[in-house]
Amino acid sequence: MERLLITGAAGNLGRVMRRRLASRARVLRLSDIADLGPAAPHEELMPCDLADEAAVHRLVAGCDAILHLGGISVEDRFERILQANIRGVYNLYEAARAHGQPRIIFASSNHTVGFYPQDQRLDATVPFRPDGLYGVSKCFGEALARLYFEKFGQETALVRIGSCFEEPRDHRMLSTWLSHDDFESLIDCILRVPRLGCPVIWGVSANAAAWWDNGAVAYLGWTPRDNAERFRDRIEQNMPRPAPDSPLAIFQGGRFTQDPIHRDG
Amino acid sequence: MERLLITGAAGNLGRVMRRRLASRARVLRLSDIADLGPAAPHEELMPCDLADEAAVHRLVAGCDAILHLGGISVEDRFERILQANIRGVYNLYEAARAHGQPRIIFASSNHTVGFYPQDQRLDATVPFRPDGLYGVSKCFGEALARLYFEKFGQETALVRIGSCFEEPRDHRMLSTWLSHDDFESLIDCILRVPRLGCPVIWGVSANAAAWWDNGAVAYLGWTPRDNAERFRDRIEQNMPRPAPDSPLAIFQGGRFTQDPIHRDG
Amino acid sequence: MERLLITGAAGNLGRVMRRRLASRARVLRLSDIADLGPAAPHEELMPCDLADEAAVHRLVAGCDAILHLGGISVEDRFERILQANIRGVYNLYEAARAHGQPRIIFASSNHTVGFYPQDQRLDATVPFRPDGLYGVSKCFGEALARLYFEKFGQETALVRIGSCFEEPRDHRMLSTWLSHDDFESLIDCILRVPRLGCPVIWGVSANAAAWWDNGAVAYLGWTPRDNAERFRDRIEQNMPRPAPDSPLAIFQGGRFTQDPIHRDG
Amino acid sequence: MERLLITGAAGNLGRVMRRRLASRARVLRLSDIADLGPAAPHEELMPCDLADEAAVHRLVAGCDAILHLGGISVEDRFERILQANIRGVYNLYEAARAHGQPRIIFASSNHTVGFYPQDQRLDATVPFRPDGLYGVSKCFGEALARLYFEKFGQETALVRIGSCFEEPRDHRMLSTWLSHDDFESLIDCILRVPRLGCPVIWGVSANAAAWWDNGAVAYLGWTPRDNAERFRDRIEQNMPRPAPDSPLAIFQGGRFTQDPIHRDG
Amino acid sequence: MERLLITGAAGNLGRVMRRRLASRARVLRLSDIADLGPAAPHEELMPCDLADEAAVHRLVAGCDAILHLGGISVEDRFERILQANIRGVYNLYEAARAHGQPRIIFASSNHTVGFYPQDQRLDATVPFRPDGLYGVSKCFGEALARLYFEKFGQETALVRIGSCFEEPRDHRMLSTWLSHDDFESLIDCILRVPRLGCPVIWGVSANAAAWWDNGAVAYLGWTPRDNAERFRDRIEQNMPRPAPDSPLAIFQGGRFTQDPIHRDG
Amino acid sequence: MERLLITGAAGNLGRVMRRRLASRARVLRLSDIADLGPAAPHEELMPCDLADEAAVHRLVAGCDAILHLGGISVEDRFERILQANIRGVYNLYEAARAHGQPRIIFASSNHTVGFYPQDQRLDATVPFRPDGLYGVSKCFGEALARLYFEKFGQETALVRIGSCFEEPRDHRMLSTWLSHDDFESLIDCILRVPRLGCPVIWGVSANAAAWWDNGAVAYLGWTPRDNAERFRDRIEQNMPRPAPDSPLAIFQGGRFTQDPIHRDG
Repeated sequence: MERLLITGAAGNLGRVMRRRLASRARVLRLSDIADLGPAAPHEELMPCDLADEAAVHRLVAGCDAILHLGGISVEDRFERILQANIRGVYNLYEAARAHGQPRIIFASSNHTVGFYPQDQRLDATVPFRPDGLYGVSKCFGEALARLYFEKFGQETALVRIGSCFEEPRDHRMLSTWLSHDDFESLIDCILRVPRLGCPVIWGVSANAAAWWDNGAVAYLGWTPRDNAERFRDRIEQNMPRPAPDSPLAIFQGGRFTQDPIHRDG
Repeated sequence: MERLLITGAAGNLGRVMRRRLASRARVLRLSDIADLGPAAPHEELMPCDLADEAAVHRLVAGCDAILHLGGISVEDRFERILQANIRGVYNLYEAARAHGQPRIIFASSNHTVGFYPQDQRLDATVPFRPDGLYGVSKCFGEALARLYFEKFGQETALVRIGSCFEEPRDHRMLSTWLSHDDFESLIDCILRVPRLGCPVIWGVSANAAAWWDNGAVAYLGWTPRDNAERFRDRIEQNMPRPAPDSPLAIFQGGRFTQDPIHRDG
Repeated sequence: MERLLITGAAGNLGRVMRRRLASRARVLRLSDIADLGPAAPHEELMPCDLADEAAVHRLVAGCDAILHLGGISVEDRFERILQANIRGVYNLYEAARAHGQPRIIFASSNHTVGFYPQDQRLDATVPFRPDGLYGVSKCFGEALARLYFEKFGQETALVRIGSCFEEPRDHRMLSTWLSHDDFESLIDCILRVPRLGCPVIWGVSANAAAWWDNGAVAYLGWTPRDNAERFRDRIEQNMPRPAPDSPLAIFQGGRFTQDPIHRDG
Repeated sequence: MERLLITGAAGNLGRVMRRRLASRARVLRLSDIADLGPAAPHEELMPCDLADEAAVHRLVAGCDAILHLGGISVEDRFERILQANIRGVYNLYEAARAHGQPRIIFASSNHTVGFYPQDQRLDATVPFRPDGLYGVSKCFGEALARLYFEKFGQETALVRIGSCFEEPRDHRMLSTWLSHDDFESLIDCILRVPRLGCPVIWGVSANAAAWWDNGAVAYLGWTPRDNAERFRDRIEQNMPRPAPDSPLAIFQGGRFTQDPIHRDG
Repeated sequence: MERLLITGAAGNLGRVMRRRLASRARVLRLSDIADLGPAAPHEELMPCDLADEAAVHRLVAGCDAILHLGGISVEDRFERILQANIRGVYNLYEAARAHGQPRIIFASSNHTVGFYPQDQRLDATVPFRPDGLYGVSKCFGEALARLYFEKFGQETALVRIGSCFEEPRDHRMLSTWLSHDDFESLIDCILRVPRLGCPVIWGVSANAAAWWDNGAVAYLGWTPRDNAERFRDRIEQNMPRPAPDSPLAIFQGGRFTQDPIHRDG
Repeated sequence: MERLLITGAAGNLGRVMRRRLASRARVLRLSDIADLGPAAPHEELMPCDLADEAAVHRLVAGCDAILHLGGISVEDRFERILQANIRGVYNLYEAARAHGQPRIIFASSNHTVGFYPQDQRLDATVPFRPDGLYGVSKCFGEALARLYFEKFGQETALVRIGSCFEEPRDHRMLSTWLSHDDFESLIDCILRVPRLGCPVIWGVSANAAAWWDNGAVAYLGWTPRDNAERFRDRIEQNMPRPAPDSPLAIFQGGRFTQDPIHRDG
């Protein structure tokens, strides 16, 4: 591959993938609204506000694939989410349409379905139950991606990322953890499958206690290897076990379900 | 009921419902960005741009129920849809939250699922397949309404209106037609059911050729009475029958699936 | 038919069916623990405590079909339910097995599934969610009937009766009402179908607002004719509308879900 | 329509449809291996052995639609079924492919699923359970039609006819009866729908006791009007009621399930 | 955990779990109607007839969790099952309600579904098909547990134990075997999950030939390790292979489906 | 086992199984229309045209099990498929019925469902979507086998073989590959299960990228061991990756979906 774009490359997950995906393309184009630090030899830095239509078009031009980690990734005020996750995503898809329709890996979220209970196993067809404005913006993004697939053939992997960290940090992440290794191998599968389509993929490792069923995307050939279970003892020792009637124990979205809606201004 | 708000009251459907719902509340509060004409004795006119947060709060204050027909209702440029259907809907729900959570009837659309083929029967749980930016904005609205239901208990009827006209106008509307009478009786059912929840309702008459299954909302007690079939002969005589490989015959969204994305500016 | 047995014939529903089914058999054998009044010419009165095994065997001997309305039909102390609805039902099925396996119409109840929400449509395969000890005893009865069907071929209609009264009495019964006419016609269908099997049947009229789907038993050829909807105005005028967060509006079992468990003694 | 072909036009059902469909096309082309009698003015008689490839090509040339009632319609020796229902159907589809792909109404049969029990409601996606060689040949025909649809776009209505007679003749037909009126109106719906596709349609009237669910083909706009129930009393009086353990009462295919396989020669 | 109660602790499975669970609580309270032998230092012996309400209340008081293995675990006369498995289970749940609602692990059984065929894979939502009075009593227990969960929040794991022995003993157990190790690890998962709810869990090891799908309870994080397959050769050598038309080969409940109903007295 | 018949034993797969199954029976009876080479000591060669009824009866007489690999296994002219795969299969089942109903392993094919897209996971109940006349003939064979099971109890394993080669040869086979080892172990499972029934089995190894779900036949106890994934790098290096809009990437049947129908003569 000639050029792979990573948006949100200055974020936590972006920094990890910047390092891990270095070899996937001749040039890694990196973008963020925050400081990206110095460029490595194979890197191309393009700071960009996703709400800036023209800038996004320049960003996307010449790319063969896009890992879209950019935008807001936690609950926030509506105005900020609107600009980054709604206008920004529209800009991204319009730019992709204008520039050869590179395959897109869209970082969606489990917070699109955060109000499902933890004792319900979900496949990828369940209706949305978002747990905040952030989750709603990801529902928007998934719907927009689907539109561009149906109307223009734009391929996107809608990866509903669980909790992508070095290791799981609380009881909930024993179910939602996505290891860096497994995310990396998933990206490889997405980039190499001859026909991707526009699937919803649960971004989750092979956790014994997982809530999500990826049976529908077996065709990708992805085999996650990590299992959060090996961290259970550590978590049991270090973290208080949530009470059965705590939102942390009831809902898949965990504490997001308790976040208030922050009024702008 | 003391006060019923109708947004989009100057639109085609708004004008019809303004007349038909006159007796449902002591005061009918009517809003639009377009001219609403003179107020009848029981009417209260409040012109309002849905993108104006403060104005929407004033609009919603004091209302016992809301029929939300406002916003853009056909394909349009993104910026216009963003302001009216995304920012506008957020404003509406925040205002409702601040003002006693009046029951909302949200005019969603079959264009949230317009890329399903006409020979597939849909229930209310199928994943979105929007056929344009307009359809995507309605997906956003449904997701936002769901969030406010789960988080705050705000009740909304998500009515995916088919084609609400005096009578069906083309072959597709033999399947999608919602008569004015049936829409009116649906509104009554929504307003009177003790517990509404946040259901998706197919806004369609009892057409013999309907594509949509309302079995899941039988609890509303709604019995549509009209059947587009009685207009079939007239349509067959006046309209050319679409070819089997025409988008008009393939997709539930009909010609919307062929609309281009209009770039702003 | 030579002899039709009605148990619980002194109860409210029993008295109605005693009158309505008079012509269905040459002899109507009537049983109850309460006073049955004087026998009509074609009637045979056999008072019987269902917990008395020998008495139940005598009761069943010689019958060609059984309408089992007997036992406790509301929430009660466990001991009373145990004797009438558990021991009693076992006695009934053992007696039927010993005496030619007459077809049984078993009055089960919507209270086997009373904790389902009112906005969920149920088919006959959903897992039990009983709303009291009475409901649990009906789950027992359904399971026992199924056993006798699988093991011995005993046919039973498991009729989950909604609310069988002259007319609906409150908002909930707009969904659950079973008219006397419709129950009578259902009994006829059950008795005449060449092969009954052991189906679960929702005992509910053709109410517009019904929660239950009888699609699976269409083979019976039963067409309920009544619709509780015509009583809606009267109920709206006479009964307070339940609040959206009232158990009366949330659960299919209505107030039964709020009944305490009465300790014996 | 210029020319409508009816194969099997000398059979029982063919004779009925020959008369009823007279006005549907300028020319009715009629074919059978048996004597067709004299031609009416608008009729074109073309005797044809379906196993004769060249003859079938001549038969199909110039037709705008085909009602394929031809071939064997009851259990028979394999060799006869092979020639008429397997080779014959292949010939028909090859001829249609060569001659403009006229829409085909294929008389399939409930005997493709005859081993399902009568107390199971079927939709159109259930796996085949044929009850004889005749049923197996109809499975072949459905599969072949599907192939020609997927590969070449050939549209076919796969009508699994129940029991198409003047009136129902036994208890089973209270469930399977298709009235002549309803079959005629179904044919009209099939011929006029803009896009037919290749659906499986249960050919059954609106019988109260029907076993089959046509929900998936509601898009055709077909509303059967007849109900076998009005013949129930007559059948109960004239026909012995099958025993619960009789194949007539157990299986949807009725006595076909008991037919032997007739060895050729 | 302070105190874990094991009922049925003198039974085969009870004795195994008494030994294996010794370290799970500071005190192991053991109960049975049969002799429990001498108490180990951390053990507390409380002989108890489950049909004795007051005794059961004393038994449950002060316990933090309950492994309910007590009662009848094979087919038996109705009166014995009624006292131990119906009255006894009611007593247990009333006692739990009165004493802080300790989490309960309820030993249910595959005999609640014993009449399903062996070639049908079951999830946890299938309707009951019990194969004897014992199975019916377990249906009662599951329904009662569900009631106490819905009404009072009492959490229970409904473990439908397959065949819990040292090793599989016949062909059927190649599918139904639950190893002692796997049962032990399941108990650990049940006790530690923050929110248990009231799930049905198939108590079966990771047998290659298993009939039951535990996908719905993946949230427990249970990973059974044993596979009956490694005993296949031994069983093939030592046990006659059942004939295809033997109940041992047809039904999941195996020979239980052939047990008679033993009349009392 | 005394005698195992392999038809098609001179074909590619037949030759492999001839060698691998040598020890499964005292006598291996081998049949083909092509040259079978010299017989090994335990072998019995019986050349046979499957379209020859009498020959097939002689072939089947005395066999305890049949691995039916015979007939045409790629797209071909109709006449050839008719003789070998339709008449031939009928002959085989009639012969089996006449000679003790030996268990049959029927080599069906993924080409019965070849028009499903590669991003859809299939279970064994999906309707047929054959991709050629060959696929249609296998639909016929499956339907015929089902008939003989329902009517006569003849057991058959309907193995829809993916791509059974030494190793996967192209991108599609990374999903469809069935290793020789896994096919062999599947045959063993089929032959030893006490009750086989007539299941559809996806003949596919444990490929990470498999499209087919064998959950319904877990009762066989089959655990495929091979995974095509280990050949991915080799294939990526040696084979061009199909374009996303290539039939090779869209359809499960791959290039078969593009094969023309070859007219006879």
